[in-house]
Amino acid sequence: MPDAFDYRPAFDFVIEARDPESRARTGRLTTPHGTIETPNFIFCGTKASVKGVTPAQLREARTDIILSNTYHLMIQPGAEIVARMGGLHRFMGWDGPMLTDSGGFQIFSMGHGSVADEIKGRRNAGVETPRPPTLMKITEEGATFRSYLNGEKLFLSPEHSIDIQRKLGADLIVQLDECTPFHVDRDYTARSMAMSHRWGDRSLAEFRRGGGLSANGLPQALYGIIQGGIYPDLRRESAEYTRDRDFFGTAVGGSLGAHKEQMYEVVSYCMPHVAPDRPVHLLGIGGIGDIFAGVRQGIDTFDCVSPTRVARHGWALVKGVPGERVNLRNARFREDSAPIDETCGCHTCRTYSRAYLHHLIRAQELLAITLVSIHNIFTMNRLMRDVRQAIRTGELDAIERAWVVAR
Amino acid sequence: MPDAFDYRPAFDFVIEARDPESRARTGRLTTPHGTIETPNFIFCGTKASVKGVTPAQLREARTDIILSNTYHLMIQPGAEIVARMGGLHRFMGWDGPMLTDSGGFQIFSMGHGSVADEIKGRRNAGVETPRPPTLMKITEEGATFRSYLNGEKLFLSPEHSIDIQRKLGADLIVQLDECTPFHVDRDYTARSMAMSHRWGDRSLAEFRRGGGLSANGLPQALYGIIQGGIYPDLRRESAEYTRDRDFFGTAVGGSLGAHKEQMYEVVSYCMPHVAPDRPVHLLGIGGIGDIFAGVRQGIDTFDCVSPTRVARHGWALVKGVPGERVNLRNARFREDSAPIDETCGCHTCRTYSRAYLHHLIRAQELLAITLVSIHNIFTMNRLMRDVRQAIRTGELDAIERAWVVAR
Repeated sequence: MPDAFDYRPAFDFVIEARDPESRARTGRLTTPHGTIETPNFIFCGTKASVKGVTPAQLREARTDIILSNTYHLMIQPGAEIVARMGGLHRFMGWDGPMLTDSGGFQIFSMGHGSVADEIKGRRNAGVETPRPPTLMKITEEGATFRSYLNGEKLFLSPEHSIDIQRKLGADLIVQLDECTPFHVDRDYTARSMAMSHRWGDRSLAEFRRGGGLSANGLPQALYGIIQGGIYPDLRRESAEYTRDRDFFGTAVGGSLGAHKEQMYEVVSYCMPHVAPDRPVHLLGIGGIGDIFAGVRQGIDTFDCVSPTRVARHGWALVKGVPGERVNLRNARFREDSAPIDETCGCHTCRTYSRAYLHHLIRAQELLAITLVSIHNIFTMNRLMRDVRQAIRTGELDAIERAWVVAR
Repeated sequence: MPDAFDYRPAFDFVIEARDPESRARTGRLTTPHGTIETPNFIFCGTKASVKGVTPAQLREARTDIILSNTYHLMIQPGAEIVARMGGLHRFMGWDGPMLTDSGGFQIFSMGHGSVADEIKGRRNAGVETPRPPTLMKITEEGATFRSYLNGEKLFLSPEHSIDIQRKLGADLIVQLDECTPFHVDRDYTARSMAMSHRWGDRSLAEFRRGGGLSANGLPQALYGIIQGGIYPDLRRESAEYTRDRDFFGTAVGGSLGAHKEQMYEVVSYCMPHVAPDRPVHLLGIGGIGDIFAGVRQGIDTFDCVSPTRVARHGWALVKGVPGERVNLRNARFREDSAPIDETCGCHTCRTYSRAYLHHLIRAQELLAITLVSIHNIFTMNRLMRDVRQAIRTGELDAIERAWVVAR
């Protein structure tokens, strides 16, 4: 066993306040590109761009941290090019904290039709789900898959994922894991989890071999991932695995159950057993109600494509409305001179009426995507500020009631 | 003959400097939403949005004035809704000077495949071009056409066009004209021009009837249009027509010839005969070389969709390169860490490499459109600043050589 890897002083995580009623906590997560307060939300810039929104607009919408996807970037434009262009921060013009994932989630889910739905278990139960067609082979060594772009055969091992993430140069990076489909049995889940743990050890070894530094020479911090499907004992075992290795942070990954309640349960299987002083990230979850549930379980950061993805379909997130959002394409907004949300201070709400946004959406104007995305991003950041404040003042219940109402 | 309509003090046009070698001049054009220096370029916000760019980004790219299209807005969302939302400025969040056209150009060209190409005479010569299929009938009263959106039968008269533009509430508005196809004969052109003159008189009468005020009660200023095809005597007659009516400004419209040289000739037929103290707008022309040619003829404002349209196809305008632009999709930019234009100070050039923009274009990321549009808009505004400065200092030749080089 090597000496413990010391992530400080470049990285640090300090817990500042705790909710007496739950595991909720506020903290400060320090990276070489700045310190963010937690709980916080990480916005997806999948292909080195948050779709339709500039970094300046992200900042104006009070964004603290974003992520990019290793899977997409290794295929296009390739990690080498990003490294030669000075790393992802410089390449995409974002100078704040950034995370990259390992590439695993997409390898094990893409090409399968409804990717996230499947992984998140929203399909009908009963049959074992077939592997996505772009995934060719999983061995102890790594995963062989086809490029979604040109069908080229590609291979990703734990070492390769670390190497790519080193070239991309994000602050927070993640070990490769096998992200099992929802409806695999306990035996497969257990064997897969054990392999993901071995992949975690190889990721850590490769990370140490590089001195924990990006291709640009800046320190990076590695997250381990908890797998174990919907099985309490496996989740506990996997949480303890990450706890007992010198990862900087903990990510809760894999299948998160067939419905919201099961997702909450899966998280609850993990959280009593994670390293209590490390930041915990919940992968791919971003509904407003889900955020409150996750925060109460002790989750520190979240990510999800949904705030920007739903914006592209005309949905605006609104505090305190049934279903958490409204569709601006709806004819009732045709002559509505009010902003999306009277209580919101974002650029879009300060400048434009629902009628204008409705018009842009109907006219298929690109600006609709930008303006609704800005609102949704601002709203998520506002939500997270409210959540942090509520934890500090012990008002989480009241704040949740203000944000989340029954349908 | 009614008393002359006095556009002052809300509107004014003051010529400030003249180029001794040509008709080029600088001026100050005052509107209720601000004063712009001329020569200047008017960016197209066709459907109440400059595609992919916010008003804040337009301002940051040093934009002074934009336009919107009556034809598109009368169909979607409808002038009534824009009026009820407080007018176009408020609706789309642009508080600077704005122009709307009459709707005629699109009625007489849309639905015909390559609209602008046809009108601008870039097709093969010889046969009379058929009318676009959405145009149903032209009579003395006005034009009957079908909505591009749902096929609904619509009618636009000179009075109706003024009424719509009053509801939209732009600062500068334009009389309805018949925009004849390029390859109609002299006889048709002469008869059409005469009708456009009668439409101009009706536009003026309707404008006066409304007191020259928008639905919001703000003063507006009306431009007359010079028609007459490629025929010198008709162009002169039409220029004299506009000169002898109390339009605030003069627009050069209609067919501008089969190639650049003929376009320059057509403009030269008009310019000696326009009212010398009024601003002159050249409709739909926006190449960098064309701007220099137009400015030398005495043109004060230009508009064209091309800076933002070519951006959507990956073309970046660059000072001093053959062809005036480069295509960032080209593989040679794959690892190019330089900005689009080293001499450009726009947000895009200050922040992003050609390699990043190339990646965004290849990855079909929306942000590519925004970032290249911002660069092209900034470049046109920079061009116009250079042109104005060159007129003041008598260096138009030198500035043209710096911007326009042979292929």
